[in-house]
Amino acid sequence: MTTIANRPDTDWSTHPADEAGWLERAREVRRALETDAAARDRAGETPYDEIALLKRSGLVTLLGPVEHGGAGLEWPAAYRVVREVAAGDGSIGQLLGYHYLWFWAARLVGTPEQIEAVEADATRNQWFFGGAVNPRDDDVTIRDTGDEIVYNGRKSFSTGSRVSDVTVLEGVLEGTDTHVFAIVPSAQDGIVFGDDWDNIGQRLTESGSVTISDVTVPWASAAGFVDKAFQPRVYNTLNVPVIQLVFVSFYLGIARGALETALAYTRTTTRSWLHSDAERAVDEPYQLDLYGDYQSKLWAVEALADQVALEGLAIHHDAWNVTPEQRGAHEVRVAAVKARATDVALEITSGIFEGLGARATTSQLGFDRFWRNVRTHTLHDPVAYKRREVGAFLLRDELPEPTWYS
Amino acid sequence: MTTIANRPDTDWSTHPADEAGWLERAREVRRALETDAAARDRAGETPYDEIALLKRSGLVTLLGPVEHGGAGLEWPAAYRVVREVAAGDGSIGQLLGYHYLWFWAARLVGTPEQIEAVEADATRNQWFFGGAVNPRDDDVTIRDTGDEIVYNGRKSFSTGSRVSDVTVLEGVLEGTDTHVFAIVPSAQDGIVFGDDWDNIGQRLTESGSVTISDVTVPWASAAGFVDKAFQPRVYNTLNVPVIQLVFVSFYLGIARGALETALAYTRTTTRSWLHSDAERAVDEPYQLDLYGDYQSKLWAVEALADQVALEGLAIHHDAWNVTPEQRGAHEVRVAAVKARATDVALEITSGIFEGLGARATTSQLGFDRFWRNVRTHTLHDPVAYKRREVGAFLLRDELPEPTWYS
Amino acid sequence: MTTIANRPDTDWSTHPADEAGWLERAREVRRALETDAAARDRAGETPYDEIALLKRSGLVTLLGPVEHGGAGLEWPAAYRVVREVAAGDGSIGQLLGYHYLWFWAARLVGTPEQIEAVEADATRNQWFFGGAVNPRDDDVTIRDTGDEIVYNGRKSFSTGSRVSDVTVLEGVLEGTDTHVFAIVPSAQDGIVFGDDWDNIGQRLTESGSVTISDVTVPWASAAGFVDKAFQPRVYNTLNVPVIQLVFVSFYLGIARGALETALAYTRTTTRSWLHSDAERAVDEPYQLDLYGDYQSKLWAVEALADQVALEGLAIHHDAWNVTPEQRGAHEVRVAAVKARATDVALEITSGIFEGLGARATTSQLGFDRFWRNVRTHTLHDPVAYKRREVGAFLLRDELPEPTWYS
Amino acid sequence: MTTIANRPDTDWSTHPADEAGWLERAREVRRALETDAAARDRAGETPYDEIALLKRSGLVTLLGPVEHGGAGLEWPAAYRVVREVAAGDGSIGQLLGYHYLWFWAARLVGTPEQIEAVEADATRNQWFFGGAVNPRDDDVTIRDTGDEIVYNGRKSFSTGSRVSDVTVLEGVLEGTDTHVFAIVPSAQDGIVFGDDWDNIGQRLTESGSVTISDVTVPWASAAGFVDKAFQPRVYNTLNVPVIQLVFVSFYLGIARGALETALAYTRTTTRSWLHSDAERAVDEPYQLDLYGDYQSKLWAVEALADQVALEGLAIHHDAWNVTPEQRGAHEVRVAAVKARATDVALEITSGIFEGLGARATTSQLGFDRFWRNVRTHTLHDPVAYKRREVGAFLLRDELPEPTWYS
Repeated sequence: MTTIANRPDTDWSTHPADEAGWLERAREVRRALETDAAARDRAGETPYDEIALLKRSGLVTLLGPVEHGGAGLEWPAAYRVVREVAAGDGSIGQLLGYHYLWFWAARLVGTPEQIEAVEADATRNQWFFGGAVNPRDDDVTIRDTGDEIVYNGRKSFSTGSRVSDVTVLEGVLEGTDTHVFAIVPSAQDGIVFGDDWDNIGQRLTESGSVTISDVTVPWASAAGFVDKAFQPRVYNTLNVPVIQLVFVSFYLGIARGALETALAYTRTTTRSWLHSDAERAVDEPYQLDLYGDYQSKLWAVEALADQVALEGLAIHHDAWNVTPEQRGAHEVRVAAVKARATDVALEITSGIFEGLGARATTSQLGFDRFWRNVRTHTLHDPVAYKRREVGAFLLRDELPEPTWYS
Repeated sequence: MTTIANRPDTDWSTHPADEAGWLERAREVRRALETDAAARDRAGETPYDEIALLKRSGLVTLLGPVEHGGAGLEWPAAYRVVREVAAGDGSIGQLLGYHYLWFWAARLVGTPEQIEAVEADATRNQWFFGGAVNPRDDDVTIRDTGDEIVYNGRKSFSTGSRVSDVTVLEGVLEGTDTHVFAIVPSAQDGIVFGDDWDNIGQRLTESGSVTISDVTVPWASAAGFVDKAFQPRVYNTLNVPVIQLVFVSFYLGIARGALETALAYTRTTTRSWLHSDAERAVDEPYQLDLYGDYQSKLWAVEALADQVALEGLAIHHDAWNVTPEQRGAHEVRVAAVKARATDVALEITSGIFEGLGARATTSQLGFDRFWRNVRTHTLHDPVAYKRREVGAFLLRDELPEPTWYS
Repeated sequence: MTTIANRPDTDWSTHPADEAGWLERAREVRRALETDAAARDRAGETPYDEIALLKRSGLVTLLGPVEHGGAGLEWPAAYRVVREVAAGDGSIGQLLGYHYLWFWAARLVGTPEQIEAVEADATRNQWFFGGAVNPRDDDVTIRDTGDEIVYNGRKSFSTGSRVSDVTVLEGVLEGTDTHVFAIVPSAQDGIVFGDDWDNIGQRLTESGSVTISDVTVPWASAAGFVDKAFQPRVYNTLNVPVIQLVFVSFYLGIARGALETALAYTRTTTRSWLHSDAERAVDEPYQLDLYGDYQSKLWAVEALADQVALEGLAIHHDAWNVTPEQRGAHEVRVAAVKARATDVALEITSGIFEGLGARATTSQLGFDRFWRNVRTHTLHDPVAYKRREVGAFLLRDELPEPTWYS
Repeated sequence: MTTIANRPDTDWSTHPADEAGWLERAREVRRALETDAAARDRAGETPYDEIALLKRSGLVTLLGPVEHGGAGLEWPAAYRVVREVAAGDGSIGQLLGYHYLWFWAARLVGTPEQIEAVEADATRNQWFFGGAVNPRDDDVTIRDTGDEIVYNGRKSFSTGSRVSDVTVLEGVLEGTDTHVFAIVPSAQDGIVFGDDWDNIGQRLTESGSVTISDVTVPWASAAGFVDKAFQPRVYNTLNVPVIQLVFVSFYLGIARGALETALAYTRTTTRSWLHSDAERAVDEPYQLDLYGDYQSKLWAVEALADQVALEGLAIHHDAWNVTPEQRGAHEVRVAAVKARATDVALEITSGIFEGLGARATTSQLGFDRFWRNVRTHTLHDPVAYKRREVGAFLLRDELPEPTWYS
């Protein structure tokens, strides 16, 4: 699986000039990834090469400040880049999406000084972020030793683990309810990855457990803390909408990858049916109907995702003045995108097989990976609660509560 | 049904300043219409008052040149206005949408002089357009009498009929395959409306038959003809995408009208179920799920409609240079919107009853009109062919043929 | 609308020999009804002629004892007869189904003597039953005057009203929670029908309000009461399963009526699409797919309804020994039928229009009546609660509580 | 994977007394299989032990004559047994179903003497049948050497291969269009299994290629041939309906296995959602709705499958007198079952994950196998053609052509 190294390379030595250029860059990455995505999914090896590819392409610093070598773009661009990359490989799309989230987390919770420092360091050094953040597990505790805090415990799920340069830790300060986030180097004795992510989908995301032993961080690096007290930021509340739009991005990317890979196969390889009048598969009425239906459905959700991303951007640009009503209405729109993306991505990734035909079920082609990938991550939080969130807004004027987790 | 006259009026004596203002104006029209839409649907009277309302609001000249008193807006705005009006009354939304189509038809087929003349006259005089145009019926013939052409025949379906000031006629020149369009005054002896539109939906659209007897038009008014020869225009080929996006606009408007009218009823009137723990209907989990699902689906199609409308605008702005590939790719996107809008509008207008409950089936409330309206017009052309069009583009690189009709 | 009288008659002077014969009889009734069902739906007149037809056919005494002239059949046969009749006219199917329910209600709650007396009288006299029974309304009270009870109040909904010979009354004994049922002649001064059923579907069911003034019944006729005390019967608990299977019967019948009426129209009248290679509508791939899909779906629910009807019969035959677990498991199965019948009947009655085409939306053909009929009655109780009932049985071993109402 | 040997055994030394007993036997087999189905699916080893289990249970001779030690049952029982076994392990269900098909193939094409001989031998010796029969591949040829015929060639797909005692071969007689079937011992030098079945589902079905070299069969064993001429049998035409009902049986079995395995997990292991009021997953409204919906859908298709199986039995019992219309109408019903079973099995096997939650995506639990199994085999022939078959019957009175293959 050292194929990445052998791929015919585009020249990526300079940065694209604008967002369209970065999207084209992302498509180049997608094309590199998709050549052997099925084989890599089967092999299940740690995607060191693929993360190297992301770094070499410059995509890892898409959100980084221009003055430090980043592309200086914003979330709507990042969502689209994640979609493209996920179309080539769902796992890598997720890893990149989560990387953007943790990169951006500084802005979400950090003090102004921390934001500046993290963005500079992360961009200049092309840090790839992993994270061990999951508020459902209260099993990482933090000891306050005066100038420093010390993390200990175990998270059932992290993401990025071995391929990350830095890891975002999260834990609870002993004797309190206070969660503290900090960025630490991933390669240190106190961080041991369980290598126990063996799930049916998103197999290369390195999402297994992590054990944290005496990982020490200066209070100055505790995100958002000044004199050991957290400085609340309105911006915090944008956490869930952004997380969910990142999720949606790779669901839609995987669905598009499935649809386009299937189309190519049906055009070239699928036979018309034994008892059909059609000579070619592409003349079968059921094929035309199937692909026409799926493409239409996918376009609709993509359009909504784009529209909601722009609505979010307006809120980001004026984050300190956003009202609870504006924020809530936006999260409701995000919930709707999530619900639609989930349904449509599942329908397409399962249904393409009708267009592919029986011979396409060979493991070598690995067409099931799209469904397995979508199926796995769309369970992150129950999609029924997203529909409910939209319904409660409409029927009860209920604004979704800002939370730290979906 | 003289209720329009009694409605508490907003001041519509001046034009809104911008597109947002016109959309607000459209919402005011919607609110006026929806107060008695169910009753008017039952009564089935010719909507003179409603067309008067459209004129008074200024919406009829939305596409008219500013210098003649029009709003000077373009199709994306018109689509949105149609949506709003259709949310209040599906029939009136359709009438307005068709009016825009015929108003714009001058630009589609007319010579530069005709375009200028028609737009000036139509805008200054607030003409409301009807039309008797249906290429499936070859039963209107045209006699060339030298300086004039004379229409004779019968169309099974026109739209607008009695409420129109002018009617777009279409017929075939005797002994040729040439279709000729012309705008004529609706009120003339040679035009007799059959008043035979009695269909299950869009009941106020005045879409019955029309008999045309010796309706005479100077050759100079034959749209697009110079010296009795038609001047082909690339722009012609945009006909179907625009028609279909107009259709989509009132489907989506009706669906939104259904959803919001149902929401208001469920919030205020529907009871929780006999055996439920919930005291209020709005606390029933199935209600939250239902409305959340429908709203999400509708938002997705609306977003796609908006996106495709903007893509179309770019083509309109450079219509002479558009390539067959660009035009074809756009029509395929339009076909996808049509397919999604049809499915979602049908699902919502039938499904809202689950949220409304049994008592809402009384004829007085008329909640079935939304489904009847969508059901009726979405059959204009088989939606299966829209999915097929998308599929053929994907599987066979097939560009849809430009035609005069859907 | 005196058309029933003019119909070419089959000879119905003798009873069919067996269940198959009765089903054929029901099909004859269906054929008589369907000839002008659309016109009668529009006219909305009280279906005196149609009830006369049911009587003349002998179907009204299908459940009546053979010795009194009835057919002596059981519920599975009755469900199938209701399906057939509803295929011809949804309203008449409902009226017949409710009639069977009230005829059978004697067995459900009566004392052995009452059962025998009611079945004899009802069969010999071909009583057509109506009913004013709705436990959601507590607005009929009963005064105990010694030897008699006296009903007073108003029900928002009855069914059968003017076309019934007898009416099942239900009310609450003053100062108690005790409901008392009794059969009374419909034609009496104390019963005034509101004639206010004007709903979007099942328009001929005469389901409007009824005002009850001093309707007097001897205690001896109070169903199931001996010495003014109710004698609990295990059989009571079969109420809801039977009611729901009756509902399902006419939903399925209406769906079949819709499907077959549509098929006949598509075969004879619908045109292939303008841009189609197919010369005939019946060669359009989308038509084949649509009807194939709907027929398959309908067959599946019909099969389940048949299967569950037989399961129910076994319980009826041993009603005194049925355990709560057996009864509960049966009701859960009934709930599943209800859920599927609702979904499939709605899908078919709305979707057939895709097969019919635009011209079939004329009011004269009245193809919307099928959807309006299903849409109206399927709201009797929220279908979401049926899915929930099945789910609670599976997930929580929860048996549905026997109730008097759905 | 020697776990079968270690399973706590029921006593299977005597045959059950009746069909109900055999179904209970099948359930015992199911329970044995399901304990480690996920692990065996991952391991992908040849299911020698599982076939031994089928033999030990007596299920392999379910269709065998009683006088030779078989159960003497008919297809409806066999379908139900296949369902049960497939609920425990989809691959083993398919192997058993195909075994029954090939066991029965003697009756389908054999001469009376062959039928008697094969059924006696197969039953007494508990032959497990495999088959290399696929009319889409014309790549096995037969040489006529006088008293014998000699098969040579290669089939891309066989089923059963290594675990079979005998294999049904099919090939084309050189210089003719004549297909000849014969039963041969699987263990012979001339039959080499490719061991190349590596597909995403039904992984244990041993369905890879087979190379056939000079496999020699006496003409007397050529099924249905007398003096080298095939004796046509009406019964032949029942091939496709039976094959398809076998397919349906294991689709439904897999779906039931998925549903019940998921239910058990949700009841015991799934947690309620973080932000839920419900303490237990089984109290989540969305869980109740989901499982209620899936169970209802599955019951409906199961009921149709049962009903159609009985219709088929009547035809089997009078096979020589069945008319083309009766046969065709039956195949259309079978096509409907196939269409519904496909849709519902796919929906359930993909959708159960919503009820299971994120943690259930671990490979160890292997919940994806149900979807992979259904997804793989339902592509055997395009389900769109089944809907089309039903549609063509309804719209064009078209009877499906009897063929040798789906």
